[in-house]
Amino acid sequence: MEIFWNKNPQLIAELSKVKTIMKNTIGHPDSFVRDPIFQMIEAGGKMLRPSLLILSSKFGNYDSKRVLPVAAAIELLHTATLIHDDIIDNSRIRRGIETIQSKIGKDAAVYSGDYIIARSFMLINEQYDENMIKNLSKKISQICVGELKQYRFRYNSDISIYDYIKIVSAKTAALFSLSMYIGAYLGGIEEKTTRLFGLTGLRAGIAYQIIDDCLDYCGTDATILKSSHNDLKQGFYTLPLICALRNDKKGTLKSLLDTSNFSGDAVYKIYNIVVEKNGIHDAKRIAEKYTEKAYDALRRLPECESRATLDHILNALLDRQY
Amino acid sequence: MEIFWNKNPQLIAELSKVKTIMKNTIGHPDSFVRDPIFQMIEAGGKMLRPSLLILSSKFGNYDSKRVLPVAAAIELLHTATLIHDDIIDNSRIRRGIETIQSKIGKDAAVYSGDYIIARSFMLINEQYDENMIKNLSKKISQICVGELKQYRFRYNSDISIYDYIKIVSAKTAALFSLSMYIGAYLGGIEEKTTRLFGLTGLRAGIAYQIIDDCLDYCGTDATILKSSHNDLKQGFYTLPLICALRNDKKGTLKSLLDTSNFSGDAVYKIYNIVVEKNGIHDAKRIAEKYTEKAYDALRRLPECESRATLDHILNALLDRQY
Repeated sequence: MEIFWNKNPQLIAELSKVKTIMKNTIGHPDSFVRDPIFQMIEAGGKMLRPSLLILSSKFGNYDSKRVLPVAAAIELLHTATLIHDDIIDNSRIRRGIETIQSKIGKDAAVYSGDYIIARSFMLINEQYDENMIKNLSKKISQICVGELKQYRFRYNSDISIYDYIKIVSAKTAALFSLSMYIGAYLGGIEEKTTRLFGLTGLRAGIAYQIIDDCLDYCGTDATILKSSHNDLKQGFYTLPLICALRNDKKGTLKSLLDTSNFSGDAVYKIYNIVVEKNGIHDAKRIAEKYTEKAYDALRRLPECESRATLDHILNALLDRQY
Repeated sequence: MEIFWNKNPQLIAELSKVKTIMKNTIGHPDSFVRDPIFQMIEAGGKMLRPSLLILSSKFGNYDSKRVLPVAAAIELLHTATLIHDDIIDNSRIRRGIETIQSKIGKDAAVYSGDYIIARSFMLINEQYDENMIKNLSKKISQICVGELKQYRFRYNSDISIYDYIKIVSAKTAALFSLSMYIGAYLGGIEEKTTRLFGLTGLRAGIAYQIIDDCLDYCGTDATILKSSHNDLKQGFYTLPLICALRNDKKGTLKSLLDTSNFSGDAVYKIYNIVVEKNGIHDAKRIAEKYTEKAYDALRRLPECESRATLDHILNALLDRQY
């Protein structure tokens, strides 16, 4: 959190309130359930979606009593998808702490995620607004479709850039888009402009996920705080690999993937070909394209202090070290 | 379905409409996601919760346009919990067909369940009513807490009857209760009586789950269409076992459980002690107590055709062959 917005004490204070609302929403189930969820909330992450929501709302008439609970609900839903994501990816570390699936088992992690989803809907219902629940449940179903599509494409070396963009649009960018859309909506901004907020979030979300996927090919456990090359080991072929496949006219990489056992040696070999065939380089170019598109949309929003902060955040997010 | 209410053609026609709404709600995601969900809906199950909801609503002013979508949403939520349940129990067969977790993998099954939950909230939102979404999300979180509590008590031979009743109240009876409560609520029945519907459902749900757990000790794969003794193998100590533990003053059963490897032979031995120590017998008595309590509440509801049908259904449900 501090990495990105430590220059904005007001936002930090608001995010702290969001965390409190998140914890209050979890309530007091069995400590077996509560403790690991609280630890995950405390470990924090970037709190990006609530930040986008709050800042978008400040373009209009900002009402913290309405905005902060909705921001908390969206971050809780994001937390639930991370918990379920970690089950699927078999991840052991997230936000620098042990994952819930590793701590209490995959089985219990399924219901912990479900519990959080149900509590998020309880929270959002308190701020009732038909349009909001509709959008929220729609985006959650989109995230699931994205994740399922990604799962179905595992170990499929015929995956196209188009397939990949469809997947990340649903699994990541949908919630970015919703956060900005709902923020603007709660700020009472007129419908047409509200959609432009959604578009900014969508584009930024796509760029963000591509960068994340590039980091999986570049980072170490220490720098990105999660297992490196995890995607590849799990059979998830992300953009750097897809770009390398496209550049590898002889089909060496494709053959290697189609016959690989994904052992340490094989992964190392694949990784080297991805670098050699400019996979990371090309993926970065595509990320830059979406980053530019996000800024294009952002620049069409009314000029205000929040826009400057959003600009700063997008810059920090989309210019991370590969 | 036909087993219980084939004497009520009107209800059969309405349940068929509920299934159509369920399928329309799932919509048209990737066939990889849709097909197994559709197969599960088609395989049907007893459609018990929608039936309870529809019949409860008919005590008042029945409006099928409002009632059937809500019945579909509740059955969809139930379906989602079954999908997640099968992941945890590692079940291969449900409703006589292969489970989703077995068909497309545990990983994809997690998101399939989440997808259904999200779509259910979309559906219920169309019939928007603040009280309904509040109750629905509360009950879903209760189900999760029940499931998690049950998971935490795995292999714990100190589990009490009280713990067990708390678990089944949450994991099963909560949705029975909600179905009857919401049915009455949608029928415009006054608040005090509506709560009595909820109480009937709660008690019937507890009795139903106890009977189900007794069947796990008595049935064969052919009669109950799911793996027998599955609970025991997974370390879930249900009421027949808990009652046997209470009756086994010498602690033979407890020692056996605490040192068991739950192989075929060990399970067979435990099963025999449960029978010998009157575990199934005592559990049945407790089920009868809750059945009687359910009827007590039912009899306090206004007399009408629906009450007779509900009486018939509860009788069929709670008098299943052990």
